[in-house]
Amino acid sequence: MTPRVVTLAGGVGAAKLLAGLVRAHPPDDLLAVVNTADDTVLHGLHVSPDLDTVVYTLAGAVNPDTGWGLAGETWQAMDALDRYGGITWFRLGDRDLATHLYRTHRLGQGADLATVTSEIAEAWGLELGVLPVTNDRIETRVTTVDEGEIGFQDYFVRRRHDVPVTAIRVAGSERAQPAPGLIETLASAASIIIAPSNPIVSIGPVLEVPGVRDAVAARRDAVVAVSPIVGGAALKGPADRLMRELGHECSVVGVARLYQDVAGTLVIDEADAHLAREVEATGVSCIVAPTVMDGVESAAELARTVLNCTGIKGP
Amino acid sequence: MTPRVVTLAGGVGAAKLLAGLVRAHPPDDLLAVVNTADDTVLHGLHVSPDLDTVVYTLAGAVNPDTGWGLAGETWQAMDALDRYGGITWFRLGDRDLATHLYRTHRLGQGADLATVTSEIAEAWGLELGVLPVTNDRIETRVTTVDEGEIGFQDYFVRRRHDVPVTAIRVAGSERAQPAPGLIETLASAASIIIAPSNPIVSIGPVLEVPGVRDAVAARRDAVVAVSPIVGGAALKGPADRLMRELGHECSVVGVARLYQDVAGTLVIDEADAHLAREVEATGVSCIVAPTVMDGVESAAELARTVLNCTGIKGP
Repeated sequence: MTPRVVTLAGGVGAAKLLAGLVRAHPPDDLLAVVNTADDTVLHGLHVSPDLDTVVYTLAGAVNPDTGWGLAGETWQAMDALDRYGGITWFRLGDRDLATHLYRTHRLGQGADLATVTSEIAEAWGLELGVLPVTNDRIETRVTTVDEGEIGFQDYFVRRRHDVPVTAIRVAGSERAQPAPGLIETLASAASIIIAPSNPIVSIGPVLEVPGVRDAVAARRDAVVAVSPIVGGAALKGPADRLMRELGHECSVVGVARLYQDVAGTLVIDEADAHLAREVEATGVSCIVAPTVMDGVESAAELARTVLNCTGIKGP
Repeated sequence: MTPRVVTLAGGVGAAKLLAGLVRAHPPDDLLAVVNTADDTVLHGLHVSPDLDTVVYTLAGAVNPDTGWGLAGETWQAMDALDRYGGITWFRLGDRDLATHLYRTHRLGQGADLATVTSEIAEAWGLELGVLPVTNDRIETRVTTVDEGEIGFQDYFVRRRHDVPVTAIRVAGSERAQPAPGLIETLASAASIIIAPSNPIVSIGPVLEVPGVRDAVAARRDAVVAVSPIVGGAALKGPADRLMRELGHECSVVGVARLYQDVAGTLVIDEADAHLAREVEATGVSCIVAPTVMDGVESAAELARTVLNCTGIKGP
């Protein structure tokens, strides 16, 4: 069955909304299309941070304190790696390592990332589909003032996204193919949701895979985005700072402008209700609702709001 | 300083003798030349079992129950890998994983295996040199009766070396270069020790790297081998069975015949004293001594015996 509700997803924020969606809608009618431009090769292992955050969260296994990684994780491998002066700024927990070992093994056997991701999601008992936006390697590159262009994880983890940025590009995107079936699924979906993820480094790369932006724009009336900016700030991560540094207004209005070609509707938080008219002036319909997800109940409520925007009712 | 005492080494048995040698002789005058034909790539990680066994043992960190792996190891990653149906028959402990992560990272950066091995040995505080016999990939392949040719770890670990074997070959050996400086070091060594490792799958591949057998044979009078066969059986592993299956007499006499071109002297255990004359009949001088190492003291005593054979005295 082709899923009718497709969510474009980054990491933590998207995973929370997806955890609400599976409570508000039949999971096997849901597909998460996940950013892979954060993927990195560390110690020879293929690490897919956003895919893993989505899977771990939906499996109920995510570390609730961080929103990523596994709950109850141990760190023997990283601690031992310190002896060698190895790369430990990107912390891979012992149990999390198993996911990267498996993914790397299967990719080495010639399996594509979509297949491996399905296997991993199934192993965790997920019923919704989880699909990398592309099987090809795409890579967010960040131009910093002090160090020139660096890799995304170098920026995000090593520099704790606390350095000035002048440009972002998604290397490899011009040659990337959308994941098998993705364009067709977008064309037939009843609803396309843009999760409250970073518009520049999470949703941006998803849309930049050739064919995806056009396929989403062609369904603009069925597309509902949830603003990751609340009260002028990102709930998590550097979305606010990046938007400002790259010349966007850091507000729900700025988000509406970034998405105006692809999304017919933007859900903004009640804290931004006073900006609803300004959002609508960009040509994007505006829904005001509580968007801060502090648990699965509020996530499910937000999911229902989003689904209602496109006329899909929960069970 | 070029080390004057060079030991050709496999895994557990060699590591024990080396632990004795560092107590009987200045460590910085010792070099272990280690088999890498057991190396394998698992989950994308470069695993070097013999190198790690030697390093962990000399660091006093080896698991005393198994003779390989780390003492006090945890197994979170392998347990988690079970969820995916990943490869868990080759057990990589969490802290041991760090070694493979580091090695794979450094090799990926273009460092050669000898350099990376030195870094790992230094990180563990070792004073003796530890050198892979070659920086190139060599690989023991085992022809089994039931499954045809399989990889060494498939044979050794997965089948617990409990299947009939008809042939052994070292893939890649014809193209391999000896590690930098190895041939020169063998030429100038005061003593070359062949550790009590498997003559076919541990010492065999070391000698098969082009130039090594000739370099050792040229120093035959300075070469002392320690028999890994005691009382007709291997102390550990499949040396006895492999010798029989591949048409060799499984005794110290069979060992002497395998080494007669490269070793001037063979140290055999007291249990085999009655075979000393037969050993000598192969043209190899025979020394009878306790060779079973049940601790560092007996290992050090055996090391002194071996060193004395070539006129090197301990401190």
